[in-house]
Amino acid sequence: MVKAKTWILKKHFEGFPKESNFELREEVLPELQDGGMDNIYICIFVYLRYRGTELAKVVKSKDPAFPEGCYVVANCGWRTHTYPNGPVIFQCPWLLVPWGCLGNVITNTARETILVSAAAGAVGAMVGQICKIKGCKVVGSAGGDDKVAYLKELGFDQAFNYKTVSSLEEALKNASPEGYDCYFENVGVPFFTEALKNMKPGGRTAVCGARANYNDTTPQMCTYPHHEIITRQLKIEGFMVRSWQHKDAEYIKRMLKWMEEGKLKAKEVDTVGFENMPAAFIKMLKGDGLGKAIVKV
Amino acid sequence: MVKAKTWILKKHFEGFPKESNFELREEVLPELQDGGMDNIYICIFVYLRYRGTELAKVVKSKDPAFPEGCYVVANCGWRTHTYPNGPVIFQCPWLLVPWGCLGNVITNTARETILVSAAAGAVGAMVGQICKIKGCKVVGSAGGDDKVAYLKELGFDQAFNYKTVSSLEEALKNASPEGYDCYFENVGVPFFTEALKNMKPGGRTAVCGARANYNDTTPQMCTYPHHEIITRQLKIEGFMVRSWQHKDAEYIKRMLKWMEEGKLKAKEVDTVGFENMPAAFIKMLKGDGLGKAIVKV
Repeated sequence: MVKAKTWILKKHFEGFPKESNFELREEVLPELQDGGMDNIYICIFVYLRYRGTELAKVVKSKDPAFPEGCYVVANCGWRTHTYPNGPVIFQCPWLLVPWGCLGNVITNTARETILVSAAAGAVGAMVGQICKIKGCKVVGSAGGDDKVAYLKELGFDQAFNYKTVSSLEEALKNASPEGYDCYFENVGVPFFTEALKNMKPGGRTAVCGARANYNDTTPQMCTYPHHEIITRQLKIEGFMVRSWQHKDAEYIKRMLKWMEEGKLKAKEVDTVGFENMPAAFIKMLKGDGLGKAIVKV
Repeated sequence: MVKAKTWILKKHFEGFPKESNFELREEVLPELQDGGMDNIYICIFVYLRYRGTELAKVVKSKDPAFPEGCYVVANCGWRTHTYPNGPVIFQCPWLLVPWGCLGNVITNTARETILVSAAAGAVGAMVGQICKIKGCKVVGSAGGDDKVAYLKELGFDQAFNYKTVSSLEEALKNASPEGYDCYFENVGVPFFTEALKNMKPGGRTAVCGARANYNDTTPQMCTYPHHEIITRQLKIEGFMVRSWQHKDAEYIKRMLKWMEEGKLKAKEVDTVGFENMPAAFIKMLKGDGLGKAIVKV
């Protein structure tokens, strides 16, 4: 019998999440079933507002595909120990892999110009670097001078601090006077509206997130985007990572190779202690910290 | 020497266009050049807010491809007579062809459910009928009971008057409880926002126009569309008819065939007299009248 700690969402968020929304509880796990697995999850990735993905170490197993001691990625909730809820997604050779960044790639070709918002975040930094590997010109927007410096270190062609530029419109134009072929959208309005005005005809926007708007109690309003969509003949497409999970194995393999070759870098914001999980989650939502937010249980 | 009448945009619109925005002038056309053409345009199609497309009769020609007496479609402005400004788009066997509706088709497959807004307009009615020919289920929204009756006459599976339904949300759900695969967008907000909420996962929206918003002095605001775009993984694409002009010949041929077979019907709102051009244009923008607005010079 194993006792696990788990964070429960006691009261759903109104506006920005608070630590009081969460409650730490204890769970008693049932006995191991034949053919089942018994994992201890040692790392939790803070990912988006609604769910998480965890990297775990298998400590007890009756499944030869996932022997004791191996690392796996799975959806298990915020728990210290558990049985996997649903299939184990992937057996992972690295302890810390920048999960949550995978699969989120605009299909693009060399020599295109890509705009990435929230570019110093775990997802944005990966998108920008992948586009650089593919031979594109990459422009990143982030909310801090340290983040801008980090983007330049990663090889972004242009980067600016959207919080301190005198005009967002001007910053977007200066960074790429000829406009953008692709926009990787991760922030929502008002950035989204300005970005669309700078797309090239036929430009494509991948809508991954709306970080600036997740915690609005009343939804922010924007001017309707039709004028830009029609006159620039834009393509806009939203996506959820789960729809690309069938490609995870392929993506992770490719990204690990790039990492080994030094072409792809990943920063992590480590928090130690399972009890600090809600605090780390709130810090991540505030945009504090540079890189992927990780909690070591 | 030919004297032509022409309507000039004296003062650009502020809000809804008024007759006083226009001024009737006279132009003197220069002598016919070798290899050029001298056309008299006898019909003007009122099309969108920004431009027009005209059907004209060639009355004098040195170009054997467009002999005297033939009908052509061209971009000439609001004029009784002119030399074509740019290439003649198409030689047209019919005097009145529902120009402006061509090329604007969502790529779809049989058994899909299509939502069309401004469905009784010249474009919407064509889109709906083409989707019916392709075997889709078609739902139309229009702003009048006479328009709804017209849509049912055209074979739309469902149609409703968006001005009189108690709830737009409910009307959209009732017309297709399983949601929509495609949305042909022609009106703007607030309809657009409600339509996105009723898309099936992966649904596609073709953004053709924003009729309800063209004449706003201050842009209408809407809630930012990210939540629906992301969670439903929607594709949204804007287009301009001019980008599909290379397909005009093919489309017109196909549509004329469908018309001859009785599969495709087109209604026209005729106005007689070149001097009534601005009044007919304003009437069209108000959504008065059923079908394609046409002015016989």
